Amino acid sequence: MPHINLPEGLPGISGPLAYSPDTAKPLLMLAETLLRGPNTLTSAEREMIAAHVSYRNECDFCQLSHSAAAAAHLNGNYDLVEAAKTNPQAADVSDKLKALLTIAGKVQQGGKHVNTEDIERARERGATDKEIHDTVLIAAAFCMYNRYVDGLATWQPREREAYHEMGEMLAREGYVRDRFQETKKSTREVA
Amino acid sequence: MPHINLPEGLPGISGPLAYSPDTAKPLLMLAETLLRGPNTLTSAEREMIAAHVSYRNECDFCQLSHSAAAAAHLNGNYDLVEAAKTNPQAADVSDKLKALLTIAGKVQQGGKHVNTEDIERARERGATDKEIHDTVLIAAAFCMYNRYVDGLATWQPREREAYHEMGEMLAREGYVRDRFQETKKSTREVA
Repeated sequence: MPHINLPEGLPGISGPLAYSPDTAKPLLMLAETLLRGPNTLTSAEREMIAAHVSYRNECDFCQLSHSAAAAAHLNGNYDLVEAAKTNPQAADVSDKLKALLTIAGKVQQGGKHVNTEDIERARERGATDKEIHDTVLIAAAFCMYNRYVDGLATWQPREREAYHEMGEMLAREGYVRDRFQETKKSTREVA
Repeated sequence: MPHINLPEGLPGISGPLAYSPDTAKPLLMLAETLLRGPNTLTSAEREMIAAHVSYRNECDFCQLSHSAAAAAHLNGNYDLVEAAKTNPQAADVSDKLKALLTIAGKVQQGGKHVNTEDIERARERGATDKEIHDTVLIAAAFCMYNRYVDGLATWQPREREAYHEMGEMLAREGYVRDRFQETKKSTREVA
């Protein structure tokens, strides 16, 4: 049972987002910009960074929903996502992404864990400053989302299958659709 | 030296915020809402929660700037802020805030560390669901800001005195003033 009285039937972060619309707005805007904004990293790569950090933080909802979103961007290749999430250095992803996933894993432990060698390794493998910046911020942001979801003891389905549709929708429509729908709705109500 | 090429002379989070305006917008909006939005917790209390979490994450810039902001809300009472930040249970703050600081400290370790007893203790001492929600999200958000600041190895003055003016300004004008100035500027340019 959640620690506070959240709207029922909404899994993971959806409950607290509905409970607190004022904070939901920047939280969703941030996810949309980080995971789907214009970027030289693909959305699949960024979702895998999010899933890896959430896996390390043992947040079921976040790791399963962002795995599903990554897989949706990769024509359903859950095996690749699972490998990148659980053991990135052995996964069939680019050397650059491996180096970025190392940085993300260090950020998960704490910002000061990232060292010059981690950054140099990413640079040698072609990562730009912007890609390093975005990796650090995605990893940092998921240390927030994971704690928000688990710190309130939200309801979270544990089976991968429960997240398949959510992943498809996140990959297709993104993170701010609810807000847009609300805007549309309130516009209609005003009109 | 920062891990990436950030604008010079900007301490802590200011460098990455200037480097990446697209992500700065939701990050600042979130801080403004959490720390200065309408709330039954005072801004001083919320800044102390932020400072405590940042102290536990050993992020100099965040703990010193938010201590300064808390002190500015408390007529310069740095001693109280220092006590709440470093040893909340012995500090001269309300029993409710002590219980909320315990929850914040648990969130810093990881969301799953918060247990039913922590929540019951906060409720017995008068904390509402909204106050518990906001405490969890403030603590989670500072686990992000702290990692963003340290994961990029930003330049951070180590002396408390360097943050006094910043604290006064944050308490007086808040976190989105740069954005408002930008908006004003671009409005002028358009006009």
